[in-house]
Amino acid sequence: MTSPEAREKAVTDAVAYRRELVNEAIVEQLPVEHPERLYEASRYLLDAGGKRLRPAMVLLVGEALSDVVPRSVDYRAFPALDGDDIDLMAAAVSIEVIQTFTLIHDDIMDDDDLRRGVPSVHREFDLSTAILAGDTLYSSAFEIMLRAGATPDRALSAMDVLATTCTEICEGQALDVEFENRPDVTTEEYLEMVRKKTAVLYAAAAVIPAHLLGADDEVAEALYGYGIDVGQAFQIQDDVLDLTVPSEVLGKQRGSDLVENKRTIITVHARQQGIDVDGLIGTDDVDAVTEAEIDAAVDRLHEAGSIEYASQHARELTERGKERLSVLPDNESRTRLEQLADYLIERGY
Amino acid sequence: MTSPEAREKAVTDAVAYRRELVNEAIVEQLPVEHPERLYEASRYLLDAGGKRLRPAMVLLVGEALSDVVPRSVDYRAFPALDGDDIDLMAAAVSIEVIQTFTLIHDDIMDDDDLRRGVPSVHREFDLSTAILAGDTLYSSAFEIMLRAGATPDRALSAMDVLATTCTEICEGQALDVEFENRPDVTTEEYLEMVRKKTAVLYAAAAVIPAHLLGADDEVAEALYGYGIDVGQAFQIQDDVLDLTVPSEVLGKQRGSDLVENKRTIITVHARQQGIDVDGLIGTDDVDAVTEAEIDAAVDRLHEAGSIEYASQHARELTERGKERLSVLPDNESRTRLEQLADYLIERGY
Repeated sequence: MTSPEAREKAVTDAVAYRRELVNEAIVEQLPVEHPERLYEASRYLLDAGGKRLRPAMVLLVGEALSDVVPRSVDYRAFPALDGDDIDLMAAAVSIEVIQTFTLIHDDIMDDDDLRRGVPSVHREFDLSTAILAGDTLYSSAFEIMLRAGATPDRALSAMDVLATTCTEICEGQALDVEFENRPDVTTEEYLEMVRKKTAVLYAAAAVIPAHLLGADDEVAEALYGYGIDVGQAFQIQDDVLDLTVPSEVLGKQRGSDLVENKRTIITVHARQQGIDVDGLIGTDDVDAVTEAEIDAAVDRLHEAGSIEYASQHARELTERGKERLSVLPDNESRTRLEQLADYLIERGY
Repeated sequence: MTSPEAREKAVTDAVAYRRELVNEAIVEQLPVEHPERLYEASRYLLDAGGKRLRPAMVLLVGEALSDVVPRSVDYRAFPALDGDDIDLMAAAVSIEVIQTFTLIHDDIMDDDDLRRGVPSVHREFDLSTAILAGDTLYSSAFEIMLRAGATPDRALSAMDVLATTCTEICEGQALDVEFENRPDVTTEEYLEMVRKKTAVLYAAAAVIPAHLLGADDEVAEALYGYGIDVGQAFQIQDDVLDLTVPSEVLGKQRGSDLVENKRTIITVHARQQGIDVDGLIGTDDVDAVTEAEIDAAVDRLHEAGSIEYASQHARELTERGKERLSVLPDNESRTRLEQLADYLIERGY
């Protein structure tokens, strides 16, 4: 039995190795070219960092499926299940580009000033440039996915997943906004919102390599389910971290979800316990809230068992997701995917 | 020889017939479903009208290529060149949906209040909903294009064109904004901007049916060129109309391009004739400008020959575009495409 620390080190090392390669590929796939300002704005948030968890998932799923020795393989000429070569790295970059487009547009909608420790794109540039940078990344992601170079039927499946995923992300974001004005959101509604807003992109990251490499439908379906489960767990953990991690570590005000009346599984549970969730914080201005107010609100949520309920739910989703990986060959990359699932809910920020 | 009136009637009738079918297909392809407000916002501008010139072009090119009898054919089960059936109407709707997404986001960037005689989406709804409605249409267009059901290699070519087109539209819009602060724009730069911002979507409308139906590369290339030529001519005519058509017919303030310092082929030409273009109108507020100021500015541009220069350039592009259609079988739909090219620069608004 590996210790939790050794397990976490194994997965963070695995992600870090792939992150460097993903970062190099981003620069290649999205060069800053004419018109420069547009591409500078499009690259700005990509260059500001990010854990690259989703592209790492694309690469790990590919490795596990094709049963290759990790770190020995060229992702740009990656063996499909029938021996064809594809550019798996292009698919990984495409997923990260979609994620970045959604962050840029979400930051406009939420009027957030900071992201990844730097100004949001609409703050660093301006509203028009930020909208346009997001739009540019949107179609670029489709272009980059096509560069994977799979056979037409496989490439088409990947494009289909990508398009459906993007539509669902928009639906999820719309639900998230709608819920701010609806106190009576149920756990089922919250989970639907989280599935669309967050989990489907993890599911795309897990299933697209299966399509590109020519895996069976049954395998693809299981991988999609893995992505949904661990993606929902990831978002629930995000909700928990928003309350429990100091602002300076979080890179934004702790408790901002509470201040902005975002519905989370925590507040939905608390409301069912009779807590006046909207009354927990007296302001809806993130700049006006005090640490003491947030401490008191978090204490109430702990007392009601709401934070523990959320953590427990995330843990169950994670276990279910890991079980789905049994369709994969038993190899090192599959182990990393299991550890990645754990990491998504054990990470401190 | 047909009279210009008879020619215009032939093409407007042809477009009107296809518009009705396109409108029905839009409702089928983009039903208002959960979350309703998002889909209401996404459909709002589509339902407000529009000439449907681009989807009509998709259908006419398909008819001409497959040499079918117009108005006898089911666009949802349309014969490809080798006898396969495809849903050509889905491709037509996809192009219109892309056009609508760009209008919604452009209206935000330009902070325009009106579009097609109704409030712009960010005015009727709000900024967040408008961004999200545009984003939803964006990926929906890719989903709808996939529903054409062509063979994988052909479908993939269509998706490739669609993705590249969207990226170029973003680049064109970025150039348009950049040019507002640059008095020294050349005719070549203007034409590049117009090619990307406007013409590539006409080119996509013309070439995608060729890909989906299995036409030769040479035919596809000629059709793409047709779209670029007539699309550029269309935009130049738009620039002319902005100056010459009364505000009430235009549906927005006449001369708004001048007020907002938009570079057009007219102002680029005028500047080369030594006219102080930025000084023609004393305000940059569309609500503050007077009709007399605009009349005086338009007189100066007429005197400099700039409006005539633009019209002449549009006419030459149109003729070149029509010549490219010689790759098509000589049939009624090809004649309509020639007339459509003329219509794009002869229309009064």
